[in-house]
Amino acid sequence: MSNKPTAAAIPGNTIGRLSLYRRLLQELLAQGTRQVYSHQLARLAVSTPSQVRRDLMTIGFSGSPRRGYTISELLANIEGLLARSIETSVALVGVGNLGRAILAYYANRQPVRFAAAFDRAPEKTGRILHGCRCYPVSEMAEVIAREQIHVGVIAVPAAEAQGVADQLVLAGVRGILNFAPVRLHVPAGLYVEHVDLMMALDKVAYYAHQQVEQQDSSR
Amino acid sequence: MSNKPTAAAIPGNTIGRLSLYRRLLQELLAQGTRQVYSHQLARLAVSTPSQVRRDLMTIGFSGSPRRGYTISELLANIEGLLARSIETSVALVGVGNLGRAILAYYANRQPVRFAAAFDRAPEKTGRILHGCRCYPVSEMAEVIAREQIHVGVIAVPAAEAQGVADQLVLAGVRGILNFAPVRLHVPAGLYVEHVDLMMALDKVAYYAHQQVEQQDSSR
Repeated sequence: MSNKPTAAAIPGNTIGRLSLYRRLLQELLAQGTRQVYSHQLARLAVSTPSQVRRDLMTIGFSGSPRRGYTISELLANIEGLLARSIETSVALVGVGNLGRAILAYYANRQPVRFAAAFDRAPEKTGRILHGCRCYPVSEMAEVIAREQIHVGVIAVPAAEAQGVADQLVLAGVRGILNFAPVRLHVPAGLYVEHVDLMMALDKVAYYAHQQVEQQDSSR
Repeated sequence: MSNKPTAAAIPGNTIGRLSLYRRLLQELLAQGTRQVYSHQLARLAVSTPSQVRRDLMTIGFSGSPRRGYTISELLANIEGLLARSIETSVALVGVGNLGRAILAYYANRQPVRFAAAFDRAPEKTGRILHGCRCYPVSEMAEVIAREQIHVGVIAVPAAEAQGVADQLVLAGVRGILNFAPVRLHVPAGLYVEHVDLMMALDKVAYYAHQQVEQQDSSR
């Protein structure tokens, strides 16, 4: 592992924006662009130039007022930061519709690797889905230790999610990406990111419908 | 449509939490529970009792200090609010791995209905996936008008997402759920919810890896 001193934790929202900048910079580079100004990156990211400059200062990078940022250098810098996680192996729990979709979506995307999937259903275990082998839940602790898995992805029904989270924590994972529509209780310091797909669509549908009602009532 | 005056817009985060309470209350009711206190609901939602009480006051509901909230009444109330969107029809754009996963995930989940999907690839059009018919992109405006679709879900690559958003807006949608890893520019007042699955996993992997490094360096 790295001998470098561990950097102070960068806030989650900043990491999120750096991940976005990385993809935007990759696209610019692919289009043949070499330099970018903070206001250009801000426009692409739907942010403000000062936010972009602050985020890039956080990782020790500043542009030139005349030429902006050199894209290849900036990209290497952000990738260096995010790529600490290159060796991060991930376990999926729950191989239903959503779990299979998650495997299909993340397959062959750096910097993470789905090293194992777990499911209660005996007919699913032993299969290989998008390069990822499915194990019985009873082998979770053993497989997670052997494969040095540090991240768990939960895609089980709401009622089972807390139990799965407890198992993952006991098995030694340090971060959880939770797709189950329920909040998880985990030990302090363990990072949980929650993606609630039903809530996301509920919100859009609610606001869209409210706009339709407003238009109807103003006729 | 409703003759009731349109309620003042409820903030997005409140709608999100109401959507969560709904699912938690449904589970409690299924378990045979009839009454719930705000502190119980807060614990399930990983929130605070005062937050729960504030959210429920927003929709005009207050519990009794002695018996808490009657679950069936509270649930009917929240469902009444969110169910304004029952008739909301949704269009998906992009029927790749992610798009198919989205259709599989949301199929048969109230209160929304995927009424149409669009893709550039001719071999996909005409097919029915999870009950949803796939049309060529050229028919977007016509189908969205005919099916009275008010919500668009974007699951195309980043480089195509803004163009698709522009087409959806022109066709008349009022809200967008965007899965493409790029921010969208849309007219003011149009609601966009962004789900960035790569960013979510990047964040978890970053923090998990940082914890591993810290542990290693303290050995």
